[in-house]
Amino acid sequence: MGKQFVKEITSMNEDFPQWYTDVVKKADLVDYSSVRGSMIIRPYGYALWENIKSALDQKIKETGHENVYMPLFIPESLLQKEKDHIEGFAPEVAWVTHGGEDELAERLCVRPTSEVLFGEHYKNIIHSYRDLPKLYNQWSNVVRWEKTTRPFLRTLEFLWQEGHTCHATDEEALEETVKMLEVYADICENLLAIPVVKGKKTEKEKFAGAKLTYTIESLMHDGKALQSGTSHHLGDGFAKAFGIQFTDQDGKEQYVQQTSWGFTTRIIGAMIMVHGDDRGLVIPPKVAPKQVMIVPIAQHKGGVLDFAYDLKEKLSKVARVDIDASDKKPGWKFNEYEMKGVPIRLEVGPKDIEKGQVVLARRDTGEKMVTPLENLEETIVQLLEKVQTSLYNKAKEHRNEHTYEAYTYEEFKQIFNEKQGFVKAMWCGNQACEEKIKEDTSVTSRCMPFDETAIAKACVCCKEEAQHLVYWAKAY
Amino acid sequence: MGKQFVKEITSMNEDFPQWYTDVVKKADLVDYSSVRGSMIIRPYGYALWENIKSALDQKIKETGHENVYMPLFIPESLLQKEKDHIEGFAPEVAWVTHGGEDELAERLCVRPTSEVLFGEHYKNIIHSYRDLPKLYNQWSNVVRWEKTTRPFLRTLEFLWQEGHTCHATDEEALEETVKMLEVYADICENLLAIPVVKGKKTEKEKFAGAKLTYTIESLMHDGKALQSGTSHHLGDGFAKAFGIQFTDQDGKEQYVQQTSWGFTTRIIGAMIMVHGDDRGLVIPPKVAPKQVMIVPIAQHKGGVLDFAYDLKEKLSKVARVDIDASDKKPGWKFNEYEMKGVPIRLEVGPKDIEKGQVVLARRDTGEKMVTPLENLEETIVQLLEKVQTSLYNKAKEHRNEHTYEAYTYEEFKQIFNEKQGFVKAMWCGNQACEEKIKEDTSVTSRCMPFDETAIAKACVCCKEEAQHLVYWAKAY
Repeated sequence: MGKQFVKEITSMNEDFPQWYTDVVKKADLVDYSSVRGSMIIRPYGYALWENIKSALDQKIKETGHENVYMPLFIPESLLQKEKDHIEGFAPEVAWVTHGGEDELAERLCVRPTSEVLFGEHYKNIIHSYRDLPKLYNQWSNVVRWEKTTRPFLRTLEFLWQEGHTCHATDEEALEETVKMLEVYADICENLLAIPVVKGKKTEKEKFAGAKLTYTIESLMHDGKALQSGTSHHLGDGFAKAFGIQFTDQDGKEQYVQQTSWGFTTRIIGAMIMVHGDDRGLVIPPKVAPKQVMIVPIAQHKGGVLDFAYDLKEKLSKVARVDIDASDKKPGWKFNEYEMKGVPIRLEVGPKDIEKGQVVLARRDTGEKMVTPLENLEETIVQLLEKVQTSLYNKAKEHRNEHTYEAYTYEEFKQIFNEKQGFVKAMWCGNQACEEKIKEDTSVTSRCMPFDETAIAKACVCCKEEAQHLVYWAKAY
Repeated sequence: MGKQFVKEITSMNEDFPQWYTDVVKKADLVDYSSVRGSMIIRPYGYALWENIKSALDQKIKETGHENVYMPLFIPESLLQKEKDHIEGFAPEVAWVTHGGEDELAERLCVRPTSEVLFGEHYKNIIHSYRDLPKLYNQWSNVVRWEKTTRPFLRTLEFLWQEGHTCHATDEEALEETVKMLEVYADICENLLAIPVVKGKKTEKEKFAGAKLTYTIESLMHDGKALQSGTSHHLGDGFAKAFGIQFTDQDGKEQYVQQTSWGFTTRIIGAMIMVHGDDRGLVIPPKVAPKQVMIVPIAQHKGGVLDFAYDLKEKLSKVARVDIDASDKKPGWKFNEYEMKGVPIRLEVGPKDIEKGQVVLARRDTGEKMVTPLENLEETIVQLLEKVQTSLYNKAKEHRNEHTYEAYTYEEFKQIFNEKQGFVKAMWCGNQACEEKIKEDTSVTSRCMPFDETAIAKACVCCKEEAQHLVYWAKAY
């Protein structure tokens, strides 16, 4: 536990962005490469993504969706078919212009998202109301040519799933949009212990080509917001651009109503910034690649290692358990697995064996507990659940403490001058106010929450009649 | 079932390539898009890939490997670091030259494989013998700019896993190379019921940049061979190009010894061409997305549908079972699930219910069996196992029947004039003979099998002293 073992990372309160960069690197989540803006996701980081993917994929399938795989490349002419969409994405796509030695007749963009590919395919396979709904999902990589990048939060390439569905009616599409937002919220809150605010994006902030966009927004430790998942009701915009029609039960040709929704590796950044501390990562048990790390004490002494390995085998039936039996010092190991955010450390040495006990240390609180071997499996399971709940509650408390209300523009600006967080304030619905606020304060509208209970009658900016309650924040 | 229901597909013996194209389309495995040479993998095709991926991923993890994710793009200068490698891949990569509106200072290629990215990363993270072995794997998409393409078999973009490992010694790297080839062989033979020949590639056919390449080769229904998985011993070529060194136990700097190995969506093409027939796909039970399809007969009659759904629930505990309760005719359904290669069809109608029985129909043999409801779960499990074994045996028999031996060049040419298959023949080891054979007959060396028992003393081509037994074939 001595200070000499502590890997040097910047303190959160001193320099939060630097703390983040230190943690992702020192916890072995990512490495950099000579590919600007891209990251190497290392085994520990990728195991996190696999756990998230596996939980989300199960829910996507349980809600009736099927996985497919679309091409990586999109011909320029195809991308241009839906006007708002191309306007939104053209500035940030990568273009392939040569194949082998040959220049291509038409440029191909590397998919930034796949609405247009699904659009073309849906036109081919949807004919009748019997073909609806079509509920597809894709797990893939996408590329957006970002100028400034940070691991997980904003990278040239990222991994995600993108759902794309077609429905007979507007109501069904809306229902689907909300259903998938709820799935995302469930993954955030129950798997990642990240509380979210659910709501609708303003016109200004919605997805390029969508009729409306729903979002879940979470609050990081530094009081900045992070958009954690979005679900779009596309209406019939793409259907009209691509000619996706079906014959309804009365024999009439109709355009389908579509949705799309995405969840990305970005959420790992949120997990880090919501739960981490000055000793490194803190990973919620449900998503942790390793939930319990066994550190043998005085392992050179007879019987200790055998005992530790037996424990590992026994506990592996109820949790993801690993052991570090390397010849490094226990203090080094303590520090390493604290940096990596393993929820529980289990120490066992000769004296513990004699007394029929082990020591359990919680990563989140630092609490150490001498624990009898009897019913240890059950103790571990219960402790993991307790840690999970405790992390969620702590994050929710932090968010609530950093959620403010502003009634005047002066109050609004003052809050963001003095601190960071969500600010709830009323809005007239006019884009000019949104733009003014952004220009004055760098604050953006995060969402109009599902729970729209008004807190005042006038817009916080222009004082005209308010239409919506809005969560405002500076955002990643 | 009546001819009127049969979807029209070309007969295998009439035009095998057209049969293949018909099957992948009519069985809903793929669709085409406006992206030349790329395919859309539809839900039924992707479910196959998910089953293969899941089984292979488990074996990759069981053998101690960890999954990571590398960038999609490779800067041109990085790709050029290993000379043989760039020579092999330069003619077939896609080049990104623009990001958004800007021309890039350096072109990026879309990864055709990731040796150079792993090389750069390994240089960063390997320092001491304690860091070895490093056993990494990646699941990803790759792009190779092929001129002529066919779904699954050869596409611009495909999905795969690529393993990349570093070892302290040549022996360890060789052991790893063979171990992973055995894993691939196991997946082919036991999951996909495809018998394989294991062996070593000749210098001419080995991977660009490898010291040696191992391969598994399988034989399609039309007698052409398909390379089904390769595992490369890279030696220290990449290590020297990238400077991947470690301090050994004696304090000396050494270059690591590397391997790489890959298995792709191509194998789905092999599965189709090994097991399929004139009614469509035949999918081995272990990899089948749906193992049993329940088709209710006279489903409008009271109780039939309830009974069928109860059966589905009961059987779902032991197999992947689905039911088609749509209002389409049973004959249409029979044809549809035969086209899709579902291993067992279960028919149940009012008379069956009365008699406490169902009818089971095997896709592979067409055999229909009246089967008592009693112990139906066990019957189904056993029948699925029987079908799996039977498909493997049939494929092996077909391969053996189409494996010939040639002792003279006249015999060799005559065999390939009259029929297709593997031809075992001796080879002097001289590349000139390999090239002559390819020029004369379009036949390539598939591998020098692990079991190298000589069948003659002279090279089949030049009659000089033979060095190796070789499996020759025309190949996909």
